[in-house]
Amino acid sequence: MSGPQTPEHVLDAQGDSSSCRKDEDAREGTQSSHRMLGFSDALLSIIATVMILPVTHTEISPEQFDKSVQRLLATRIAVYLMTFLIVTVAWAAHTRLFQVVGKIDDTLALLNLACMMTITLLPYTFSLMVTFPDVPLGIFVFCVCVIAIGVVQALIVGYAFHFPHLLSPQIRCSAHRALSRRHILHLVLRGPALCFLAAIFSLFFFPVSYLLMVTVIFLPYISKASSWCKDRLVGHRDPPAPSAEVFSFDLHEPLSKERVEAFSDGVYAIVATLLILDICEDNVPDPKDVKEQFRGSLVAALGAYGPHFLAYFGSFATVGLLWFAHHSLFLHVRKATQAMGLLNTLSLAFVGGLPLAYQQTAAFARQPQDELERVRLSCAIVFFASIFQFAIWTAALLRQAETLQPAVRFGGQEHAFMFAKLALYPCASLLAFAATCLLSRFSTAIFHVMQIAVPFAFLLLRLLVRLVLATLRALRSLRPPQPLPSRAPEEAQSRLLPSSC
Amino acid sequence: MSGPQTPEHVLDAQGDSSSCRKDEDAREGTQSSHRMLGFSDALLSIIATVMILPVTHTEISPEQFDKSVQRLLATRIAVYLMTFLIVTVAWAAHTRLFQVVGKIDDTLALLNLACMMTITLLPYTFSLMVTFPDVPLGIFVFCVCVIAIGVVQALIVGYAFHFPHLLSPQIRCSAHRALSRRHILHLVLRGPALCFLAAIFSLFFFPVSYLLMVTVIFLPYISKASSWCKDRLVGHRDPPAPSAEVFSFDLHEPLSKERVEAFSDGVYAIVATLLILDICEDNVPDPKDVKEQFRGSLVAALGAYGPHFLAYFGSFATVGLLWFAHHSLFLHVRKATQAMGLLNTLSLAFVGGLPLAYQQTAAFARQPQDELERVRLSCAIVFFASIFQFAIWTAALLRQAETLQPAVRFGGQEHAFMFAKLALYPCASLLAFAATCLLSRFSTAIFHVMQIAVPFAFLLLRLLVRLVLATLRALRSLRPPQPLPSRAPEEAQSRLLPSSC
Repeated sequence: MSGPQTPEHVLDAQGDSSSCRKDEDAREGTQSSHRMLGFSDALLSIIATVMILPVTHTEISPEQFDKSVQRLLATRIAVYLMTFLIVTVAWAAHTRLFQVVGKIDDTLALLNLACMMTITLLPYTFSLMVTFPDVPLGIFVFCVCVIAIGVVQALIVGYAFHFPHLLSPQIRCSAHRALSRRHILHLVLRGPALCFLAAIFSLFFFPVSYLLMVTVIFLPYISKASSWCKDRLVGHRDPPAPSAEVFSFDLHEPLSKERVEAFSDGVYAIVATLLILDICEDNVPDPKDVKEQFRGSLVAALGAYGPHFLAYFGSFATVGLLWFAHHSLFLHVRKATQAMGLLNTLSLAFVGGLPLAYQQTAAFARQPQDELERVRLSCAIVFFASIFQFAIWTAALLRQAETLQPAVRFGGQEHAFMFAKLALYPCASLLAFAATCLLSRFSTAIFHVMQIAVPFAFLLLRLLVRLVLATLRALRSLRPPQPLPSRAPEEAQSRLLPSSC
Repeated sequence: MSGPQTPEHVLDAQGDSSSCRKDEDAREGTQSSHRMLGFSDALLSIIATVMILPVTHTEISPEQFDKSVQRLLATRIAVYLMTFLIVTVAWAAHTRLFQVVGKIDDTLALLNLACMMTITLLPYTFSLMVTFPDVPLGIFVFCVCVIAIGVVQALIVGYAFHFPHLLSPQIRCSAHRALSRRHILHLVLRGPALCFLAAIFSLFFFPVSYLLMVTVIFLPYISKASSWCKDRLVGHRDPPAPSAEVFSFDLHEPLSKERVEAFSDGVYAIVATLLILDICEDNVPDPKDVKEQFRGSLVAALGAYGPHFLAYFGSFATVGLLWFAHHSLFLHVRKATQAMGLLNTLSLAFVGGLPLAYQQTAAFARQPQDELERVRLSCAIVFFASIFQFAIWTAALLRQAETLQPAVRFGGQEHAFMFAKLALYPCASLLAFAATCLLSRFSTAIFHVMQIAVPFAFLLLRLLVRLVLATLRALRSLRPPQPLPSRAPEEAQSRLLPSSC
């Protein structure tokens, strides 16, 4: 009945130490923060993406496309983009914070929930701001929210440093604990301090508030850019010795790979699912219509929705395969630098726009006259979502010693696969875009062919890449033997190394 | 530059073996299935929950509450419940399947995406079925979907058994591999086989199809119940020796704890976020109204939405704290039995209904006349969501040697905390319900007081439980010393054991 005799612990070599850790956790009332962070990631990714729903639900018919509808659409797109941006900034700050706080207890879990609740209110403040650009109330409420988030995060920091067993081992054992507390408090509170100023300005001269708000949103990038400029001007210095150890939560430190993956998964999952919501709400025919227009034939009534289903399959395949490319990409990644984080955010923002592409292509049935613009818009969204993924891989390759798994770094066939996987969607969407320019009459057909062809291309990719590589090798062996190019020994090494391991 | 010299591997004692495992994966083209399962969990939990949106978006005004609105509402609730049920069944099957398949490669990832796409279509077939109960097309499409899912899953099984390095180590090293393949194929294909029958019946006599469909949905529970009845009738036999090793994916085997947590997190996260979508879409006042009705005062206009914000805070706090209770509960759980999985599903189905409670309490402002029913409905939803959580804990305690972490099994203070945490919401909602019966005039006030008081109760819980336990101990020490009850030595042991560890 007592712990160490259970079969789990006999089987598992690490069982004894892990059960000991759990016992210790139970005694101290602490818990691993893993699940709480997963929940926060899911929540934040859904908040970031869900504001696309009001955009796609804006009803536009060509007769009625007047100024008010245009303004409503612009409003909603602005709210979506601002929400996406601010939520990713808040998520990055949350990631930094919980790289310092390694374990949680009940109080921290409740404080984290309070923090999440305040973050969910931010989209509403944007709605207010965009609907009433001349009234400073929206920006005042926004500032109050940011200050509240800052206060809650400062409480989390204060609490964790008051009970040091909650800190990550690196900070707990450091000699500079007080220094690192001051540093993280500075990081957590500088945004809210600016917002406090903005709130005061909003009471008498609110344009300054907007300026301050933009500063708050872009603060991480501004600070990164300013430190980069300083490095360039002063000349690159080696970082002072303690900072490497103490400031492991620094903004220039790579983000945790697990949390980047979890946040991205949340965005892909909600985007894939929003599509079916539209299908279920809009594409079930009305029983009355079926009786009157289709003489009771449900199959005929559903036939009218054909293009919608085709658009749904195409969009789901696109979201799914973009997730697949992202998944393959991050399999090879060990750490995500800040540049990769920014590129990932941009890619995800366009992925969040994919329901719009679905709605555009589903609307063909109703308004065939402007299908050319719709196809081009959809191609552009797919292109930008995928080209930023490609850019993540390029950014990772530029600093591969730091960012990639050791096994991937030798080049060769895996590299060729990865490039082919990531280049598939940018190429296909560009091709479709170019084709619509040449053959504008068949634009819908071209788009659907692209959506159906790409999944098959993914299936056959491994075969294709192998074929191309084999052809290249065959061509090379036909030439008279030459001193091999510099990459070839590495490739040979990569084939030898795993078997020796 | 080469792998083993990077600082990660110097720091990490396990680094060498894990990098070796990754090299091996890279050579074989296999990947850990962890992230794909996380993505599938997120996707399935969102599909299960998102069908509550059409329910909450049904506009009901008292004048117009006629038969058509009633039917629409009933339709949408039925679609929500059926979707939730079928998606949890599909999720459980998916969990079993990937307990057998331990690793994935690109082909399996793409097959899994195809499986997910087919599952997302199920809500639509329910919409068809419920809207046209007399037309067999809905059930025919449902059957086609289930057969497609079965075919894809059979392909996954066939592929994994064809490349045995993809199987989980337990199955790979087993002598009964062919037997276990037949067994898992039987599990995967028996639902689709029934659906094939149902599809044939739907062409000429569809009531039988409905019966077969219900059988498919409840198949796991029916098989569990039948085997339980058989055990009772025949007498309990010891399981035959090979089955313990071979059938580790059996339906009676505990579910993976990580996946239960991931699925539940997804449901809680989406429910918490759906609330803000309503706030952003409905509660931003129209600029025209502000000018005309409130003389340009935005603050006054927002004041009219006061009850909505109160309802939002209350609902978010409820969702957040129910997640917190669930989180605390599963910290102590090591494995989830099938009964616990079923209770968790029921709890989550009511959690998915919480946006309905939000909408009910937000509607007070518009229609104060029937607030009593609305408050009672909300109390009932909260009560059922929380009482099923309590039941999970009870079910876990009944088989604690199998289900709980060793450290928890000694009883004492942690037990008291856990009971207090889980009993808080059932008690509070029951109390609020009872109070509305006695003081029906103040029902809204009572509900809001409950929503605000419970979070504070959570904060003070640790203090309260300690106070109660101290009082009990003081009372006990006042009595003359007696032979201690049987639980007391265990409690003493629990206090000694961790320090000796």
